[in-house]
Amino acid sequence: MEVHVFEKQSARPACSAICASNAGRENQDRIPIDLVVDGGVALTMVEDQEPVMNSRILVSNGRIVAIGRKRDLTIPNGASYELLDATDCLVMPGLINAHAHTAMTIFRGVSDDLPLKRWLFEKIFPLEKEFLSSDTVYWGALLGCLEMISSGTTCFADGYFLQDQTAMAADAAGLRGIIAQGIIDFPAPGVPDPKENIAVGQRFIQRWKGKSELITPGLFCHSPLTCSEKTMSDAWDLSSEHHLPLQMHLSETREEVEAILSNTKKRPVDYLEGLGLLTDQLVVSHAIHLSHEEIVLLAKRGVGVVHVPESNMKLGSGVANISRMLSCGMDVGLGTDGCSSNNNLDLLCEMDSAAKLSKVFERNPANMKARETLKMATLGGASVLGLKNEIGSLEKGKMADMIVIDLKRPHLWPVYNPFSTVVYSANGSDVRDVIVNGRILMKNRNFMNLDSNEIMCRVREISRRIARFF
Amino acid sequence: MEVHVFEKQSARPACSAICASNAGRENQDRIPIDLVVDGGVALTMVEDQEPVMNSRILVSNGRIVAIGRKRDLTIPNGASYELLDATDCLVMPGLINAHAHTAMTIFRGVSDDLPLKRWLFEKIFPLEKEFLSSDTVYWGALLGCLEMISSGTTCFADGYFLQDQTAMAADAAGLRGIIAQGIIDFPAPGVPDPKENIAVGQRFIQRWKGKSELITPGLFCHSPLTCSEKTMSDAWDLSSEHHLPLQMHLSETREEVEAILSNTKKRPVDYLEGLGLLTDQLVVSHAIHLSHEEIVLLAKRGVGVVHVPESNMKLGSGVANISRMLSCGMDVGLGTDGCSSNNNLDLLCEMDSAAKLSKVFERNPANMKARETLKMATLGGASVLGLKNEIGSLEKGKMADMIVIDLKRPHLWPVYNPFSTVVYSANGSDVRDVIVNGRILMKNRNFMNLDSNEIMCRVREISRRIARFF
Repeated sequence: MEVHVFEKQSARPACSAICASNAGRENQDRIPIDLVVDGGVALTMVEDQEPVMNSRILVSNGRIVAIGRKRDLTIPNGASYELLDATDCLVMPGLINAHAHTAMTIFRGVSDDLPLKRWLFEKIFPLEKEFLSSDTVYWGALLGCLEMISSGTTCFADGYFLQDQTAMAADAAGLRGIIAQGIIDFPAPGVPDPKENIAVGQRFIQRWKGKSELITPGLFCHSPLTCSEKTMSDAWDLSSEHHLPLQMHLSETREEVEAILSNTKKRPVDYLEGLGLLTDQLVVSHAIHLSHEEIVLLAKRGVGVVHVPESNMKLGSGVANISRMLSCGMDVGLGTDGCSSNNNLDLLCEMDSAAKLSKVFERNPANMKARETLKMATLGGASVLGLKNEIGSLEKGKMADMIVIDLKRPHLWPVYNPFSTVVYSANGSDVRDVIVNGRILMKNRNFMNLDSNEIMCRVREISRRIARFF
Repeated sequence: MEVHVFEKQSARPACSAICASNAGRENQDRIPIDLVVDGGVALTMVEDQEPVMNSRILVSNGRIVAIGRKRDLTIPNGASYELLDATDCLVMPGLINAHAHTAMTIFRGVSDDLPLKRWLFEKIFPLEKEFLSSDTVYWGALLGCLEMISSGTTCFADGYFLQDQTAMAADAAGLRGIIAQGIIDFPAPGVPDPKENIAVGQRFIQRWKGKSELITPGLFCHSPLTCSEKTMSDAWDLSSEHHLPLQMHLSETREEVEAILSNTKKRPVDYLEGLGLLTDQLVVSHAIHLSHEEIVLLAKRGVGVVHVPESNMKLGSGVANISRMLSCGMDVGLGTDGCSSNNNLDLLCEMDSAAKLSKVFERNPANMKARETLKMATLGGASVLGLKNEIGSLEKGKMADMIVIDLKRPHLWPVYNPFSTVVYSANGSDVRDVIVNGRILMKNRNFMNLDSNEIMCRVREISRRIARFF
């Protein structure tokens, strides 16, 4: 059965805008093609680009070297490549989870439906204190990587502790990771003396910078309430020195905003402005309780925001005014947060929640359209993380991070508008194949390089100990 | 690999409360067992009942005849039965979609992200006028049934037009359907003369009452704004005469409430009260824009409410105050609405949205807990539809409508609390097996009685015509 996606007439022909067409064939002939993804409907996420029907994508050495219509793109003679048949499928950029605490999979569902303070102080903090170790963070992060691969995420930004383990897990999984060592002015897992937090972060960056083409190390300041001015400034200086993004929670709860107001006499964004931290290197997550002036200032300074709608909903924290941020021209990415407040890492479902929450929050169904939402989970995340020239869209020259979604499923049928299909109908289990850096990590829903049984067994052992804790 | 679900000590032992134990074996020995579901963790949804570990469920002639721990329940000697091994799985009551317009799958995603009036008057109404026919309603409804089976729904309440087709589709699919013929005081598909709407409904009820053990016919008054007093009263009388639920949209938009206020000088619930329509036979969907007094009155009269959170979000209509309704003791079910405003029929995802929306709406993460939410999608729906003695929980004597969810998936792992797993982590694709009336409709994700290829081909043909319309 053939999938029928209805093609729009576009003023801008799909192929000439993005592909190395046959006219450029001479160059292609000299490039060794490793992978060809053939026959799918490609959502390139290139601005104003319509879906490319019956597409062909050529990959060489981890990068897209050509993309266009199959009929317009020939494969070089004698090339030895892997062919992925994407007939009846969508092909699109891999999803980017711009805010996660991946190892928290070990705490998935351990303490739900509690008032925020009880959840945090009676459950999560004691659990983290008791159970976070090199072993648990590694296996928890690896389970998270497995889940992200299985639901179409190809790149994730992570802020947590003992981050060598998360970086190792991402590297082993073959996922692209922006892995940030947690910085907090309290004793933390792996950092018993908070005076050492910047030094620990520095050593983490030194160990991982340039070590793996998949891993970008960095720092994650827990929040302006739990980090001092000096800690945040030092973290910013260190990040700036290495040209790395600095991740931070910002204005997640009303209480946090009030506490900062009370301590500093400034609203959180003004407080960070006073410290000189507001630049395009800063990536703030949640960003719920912001005044209009704060949004305008964040936009002016080029600060990246990560929207975390499902966690914000589940914890009852509030609704970030993403539409206003987008209309101010801000870069906005999408994240899941950790599995203790979501409770999964499924960005396809997160997009659905993001769009619908925005519509009902503003009582406007035209708010946050499907395409805009998908952009948040792809190019938006790439921009926020400083990677927009490398990932986030299917374009010649970009890294070959892409996913294939099987359309032949009752709940995705029929397909009038593939952006709608992806955002409003699909879930993570509809992802058939996942490619990162040109390497296939999941094919026909089989993991190519991870032993899911081993990972789940290890996490089961950890979870048994955790269950005995209460 | 063995699944580890952490067992709570319960003051009320699981087995004695619900199962025919070995003590009652003599009775069992006389019952021909058709189906045994063995080894799963059973969420019975019986009040206060803890999950039953390593469960066994015996089915005879479409009903549950025994449920308990495997070790406590022997299978009668010489019984010839089908065995469903649910090791590493959850077993729970089939989900009940208490408000759908199933045939609207043919319009899935055809016109999203539009202002409500444009969506309705420029897209949906003209599409319905042009394309609803016996053929399209049948195949659209059958695609919806396929989707519902694939995502764990075993019973659905449907309000639409040309409902013989939806009833036939449900019956063919083997799903339990509360199928209501649409009543509206405008020309409608299959009812060109609105004066005939009650007569058409009456003939529909006469044709289907008692015809199939799966189908309960009924009426669906479109809304108090689009139906006159006489139409609603006549529909109520007819429903009452046949002891059938009367479905109705209520207070979905602010504009609708204002129009009724303006026309009748009464708020919608008071208006219906004046007509004598508020009884436990009435099932109202959406129920967003209600005053506290209206909620109290609905509760007092025993009116059933169906919460439709994703559609309400996507159309920007508002947030129903379900917590207040539950605290008033109302029966509340969960529904998806039609695929043009959702855009799927996945009740597992709908539960996640329902719980999270309620938490953020009330800024209280303890609001609408996982178990309470699952109850809404099972027993709650059964109560609203007048079927609580037949379905909605796994209990001896109830119909064998149940589903099996595979827990061995990265995004469901580990399992500390199976209610949390189902509501916050799972999606429809995690459903492995579906049983209605003791009959297996999906096994290992293979449809046992429907030809998915044929159905999707038919709907593709319909969608091609629809796509040419704009």
